[in-house]
Amino acid sequence: MSRHTQQSAVTVLGLGPMGRALAGAFLDAGVRTTVWNRTPGRDRELAERGAYGAPTPEAAVAASELTVICVVNYDAADAVVRRDAVADALRGRTLVNLTADTPDRARSTATWAAEHGIGYLDGAIMTPATTIGTPAAVFLHSGPEELYRRHRPLLDALGGTHTHLGEEIGRAAAYDIALLDVFWTAMAGYAHALAVARAEGVTARELAPFAKGIGAILPPIFEEAAAEVDSGGFSGEGNPITSAASSMAHIVHTSEAHGIDASVMRAAEGWARRVIAQGHGADGFIRITELLTPRAHG
Amino acid sequence: MSRHTQQSAVTVLGLGPMGRALAGAFLDAGVRTTVWNRTPGRDRELAERGAYGAPTPEAAVAASELTVICVVNYDAADAVVRRDAVADALRGRTLVNLTADTPDRARSTATWAAEHGIGYLDGAIMTPATTIGTPAAVFLHSGPEELYRRHRPLLDALGGTHTHLGEEIGRAAAYDIALLDVFWTAMAGYAHALAVARAEGVTARELAPFAKGIGAILPPIFEEAAAEVDSGGFSGEGNPITSAASSMAHIVHTSEAHGIDASVMRAAEGWARRVIAQGHGADGFIRITELLTPRAHG
Repeated sequence: MSRHTQQSAVTVLGLGPMGRALAGAFLDAGVRTTVWNRTPGRDRELAERGAYGAPTPEAAVAASELTVICVVNYDAADAVVRRDAVADALRGRTLVNLTADTPDRARSTATWAAEHGIGYLDGAIMTPATTIGTPAAVFLHSGPEELYRRHRPLLDALGGTHTHLGEEIGRAAAYDIALLDVFWTAMAGYAHALAVARAEGVTARELAPFAKGIGAILPPIFEEAAAEVDSGGFSGEGNPITSAASSMAHIVHTSEAHGIDASVMRAAEGWARRVIAQGHGADGFIRITELLTPRAHG
Repeated sequence: MSRHTQQSAVTVLGLGPMGRALAGAFLDAGVRTTVWNRTPGRDRELAERGAYGAPTPEAAVAASELTVICVVNYDAADAVVRRDAVADALRGRTLVNLTADTPDRARSTATWAAEHGIGYLDGAIMTPATTIGTPAAVFLHSGPEELYRRHRPLLDALGGTHTHLGEEIGRAAAYDIALLDVFWTAMAGYAHALAVARAEGVTARELAPFAKGIGAILPPIFEEAAAEVDSGGFSGEGNPITSAASSMAHIVHTSEAHGIDASVMRAAEGWARRVIAQGHGADGFIRITELLTPRAHG
């Protein structure tokens, strides 16, 4: 027995790897699922599993109270939902936009939705398509609380953890941007470290077990640093930013001696040097957040 | 009963936070410990715990078969051990240099040590001073296998995990540089992400639980990426570098719209764009390692 009644229905627009995973999870949970994709033919396997492949996006959104869209960016999302026929069909219904983009784009989409009488929730998916429908999936949502509560039972069919971050519609995208910032910067550092290691005769497989150890120590350090940033008390005790800057200079030197571009580390070291030049060399590395925070003009 | 006999003896040069932790761990393990520091007075607490505070570095190294040095960098280490009186006293003994610096400095120190008849091991400490003497400490070593085996029982008094990476003396420093590259780049990304979040009205404490989640997903991704780098097969399946570059552009745009310096992410995005310009846009992000690897000139 599925936990959703015959009345539960959802439309999924966009059938890339993530859209297909979302539609598949809804089907697995027994939700009546309508799908549509700009490029035809992507709905075949989902249709075999019981999805209704709508001929047009307006027909697709008309089939359900709730439409979920997940495409490459908001330009692509707008090209579908802002067409007059689709906007008309969405009136009085709810659109959940799980497409990744900037907070500003989420805000402008919310303004457009309000003008067209469309309920609007914005969201971000923090985990790969393979996690959808499993406990490992992580979804962030923002927008009207009432709308979120009404559709939460259906969204739960996607599995994982759902967190409503607040009514401000840009919030899910803001978290998404900040978390991807951590992720892609760390990945750039790892890609660079593997090049430096290779130049030193160390294979990626040799370095990986120790690099995994670095990944494992980050979470408690992230937590402690967050408390410092919010309180404005930057204790460099035992690990001042001067010592970090010295390590960073060693990394730049070793990279460049091998002819390896060190532009990412040079930029990061530049932040540390600016903190030190401001007279905060005894503070911890995370004082860089303070350095980067724009000051209101007086 | 301590597990070390009266015969076990070690000298620790440099009594900063790490040096004091090392000497303290030796004392706790019942090792006869001699200490010396350039600035006097740092040995008081250690002397109360039974350490012998030598008046000069030559007297300090003469007191033990094994000397461990851990100071701010190799310039500081050289200023101590390369003095004639100290080099003479070290002849026929072993020096373990746990100071952090570049692989080249480790190699030049090994050359100097060989010229002076001094046994030389180079090492790196990958964990904070607070871990020394506990199972959480991580030590990397490189240099002559026979020398490492002979002194390993004494080094075990420092607790944690000791790994001998090979005879090539620069290896410990190479791992250290590569791992610090991952660590400090990730920390720079986190400091930046907290500034972006703050500009979007999200506190560090609000973001931290999700940032910790990013830290937690890195280890398996690091392992998979390492296998790709060593095999040269870069599968972008489900997550091509074009998609990463698009996320990176969103991060740069959102930062700069708030007046936040995005130089680190701009440099990282530059690497991704170069991989794409080379025609490898369907490959995974870790192909950046290949981009950064210098090619031998033909």
